[in-house]
Amino acid sequence: MTGRIMVVGLGPGHEGHITPLVSEAVARATDVIGYIPYVERIAPRQALTLHPTDNRVEAERAQHALELAEKGRQVLIVSSGDPGVFAMASALFEVFERDSARWQDIAIEILPGITAMLAAASRAGAPLGHDFCVINLSNNLKPWAIIEKRVRCAIEADLAMAFYNPRSKSRPAEFEKTLTLLKTHCQDDRPILFARAVSTADEVIRVVPLSQTTPDMADMKTVVIVGSSQTRVVLQGDKQWVYTPRSYPFDNSH
Amino acid sequence: MTGRIMVVGLGPGHEGHITPLVSEAVARATDVIGYIPYVERIAPRQALTLHPTDNRVEAERAQHALELAEKGRQVLIVSSGDPGVFAMASALFEVFERDSARWQDIAIEILPGITAMLAAASRAGAPLGHDFCVINLSNNLKPWAIIEKRVRCAIEADLAMAFYNPRSKSRPAEFEKTLTLLKTHCQDDRPILFARAVSTADEVIRVVPLSQTTPDMADMKTVVIVGSSQTRVVLQGDKQWVYTPRSYPFDNSH
Repeated sequence: MTGRIMVVGLGPGHEGHITPLVSEAVARATDVIGYIPYVERIAPRQALTLHPTDNRVEAERAQHALELAEKGRQVLIVSSGDPGVFAMASALFEVFERDSARWQDIAIEILPGITAMLAAASRAGAPLGHDFCVINLSNNLKPWAIIEKRVRCAIEADLAMAFYNPRSKSRPAEFEKTLTLLKTHCQDDRPILFARAVSTADEVIRVVPLSQTTPDMADMKTVVIVGSSQTRVVLQGDKQWVYTPRSYPFDNSH
Repeated sequence: MTGRIMVVGLGPGHEGHITPLVSEAVARATDVIGYIPYVERIAPRQALTLHPTDNRVEAERAQHALELAEKGRQVLIVSSGDPGVFAMASALFEVFERDSARWQDIAIEILPGITAMLAAASRAGAPLGHDFCVINLSNNLKPWAIIEKRVRCAIEADLAMAFYNPRSKSRPAEFEKTLTLLKTHCQDDRPILFARAVSTADEVIRVVPLSQTTPDMADMKTVVIVGSSQTRVVLQGDKQWVYTPRSYPFDNSH
């Protein structure tokens, strides 16, 4: 049997966000590789070997998956959200490319999932209903200079923005600097969405005007969505819906 | 019974990409509203009224949904992909806001789906594995000037880009101008992904170096993904996998 690697996205947390194609891949797997909390989402069963690993060993996981597939195993690599957005799919190809002649016969399949920003947006309305950009604020693998440049360009282009990995205990500075940039260049009432642990029992959705945001509103379980100049808040009882209209003014005043 | 509007994403085409939460919403609906080809994806059944409409009547659809929900109906608004990305969720809130006092008692629920760029990316590897932006190239609802500004900023920020609605018969110019911009400012071998009718029987995935792209490679069923300066192509037999690495150079040469 040809070995196979299936890189799948388990969505943001709720089981009801896992697509049937991903569930079928889980059922076919002989091995599951991934970060501990994501592997824990896979129900153990006979003839299924779970290989949970700690954070920050993405390359080692990819190498392990390729070696198991080389032996004919059906290997599932699990990510939360979508595996192609700041997740394991890129890590797999990075490792594949280092020794690509060796892995030519392995079947590779990437199966998309509901990435955190889409789930977050859906809980708040439609803040990503017009053009937007998606930036990982972690400087573990890139310099702050390129993050800053991207945020500045996004402000200039008046894009809505989704920030992944905005802030951790060991990295409190990037999000604080990003908020300062936004406060310097954008209007005070720009709606900012903090969506924490979306679709889980711990979900918290907050909509805050830019001027009232503070860095501690975000952590590693939070996706932050910044509205564009056009993004609006509309009230329904206590609920603040946030949406970005489909149209953009033709008067060039923005 | 309180009327309800459920705005759901049916994913890019394959039934296996429809999440269980969306399938449950379909099962609860009394009415389905949407663009004809999307409504056709819902199986008819007793006590379910289908309301298919032609393109470009998003506001009328939203108004109709609100009025049906006001009468206590359980209304499903269907989009392909994700309803919050260039789709019906924004249109609903635009219409809601015009007369928001009237609709205070209607339950509103947005359920995410696999948007086209994530499915396209998954079929080609992981081109969106690092920071990226998402731009609708249609100038029906916005001026070309803001599209051009956004593409220029994305080039300067060295973001990967996903283009929705790149080109139609009545709008051939925007994509041609966008390609010219890219060819002027980006290196010749930048990988460009043309993903047409992703996850359907008509799917075509092409990876083309920027210098060899032509406008006719895209149509309204195509999502175009433009790599960043870091995006790479790796071969596996005849398959060209495209991926953007997780890291960005620290030497500031880009």
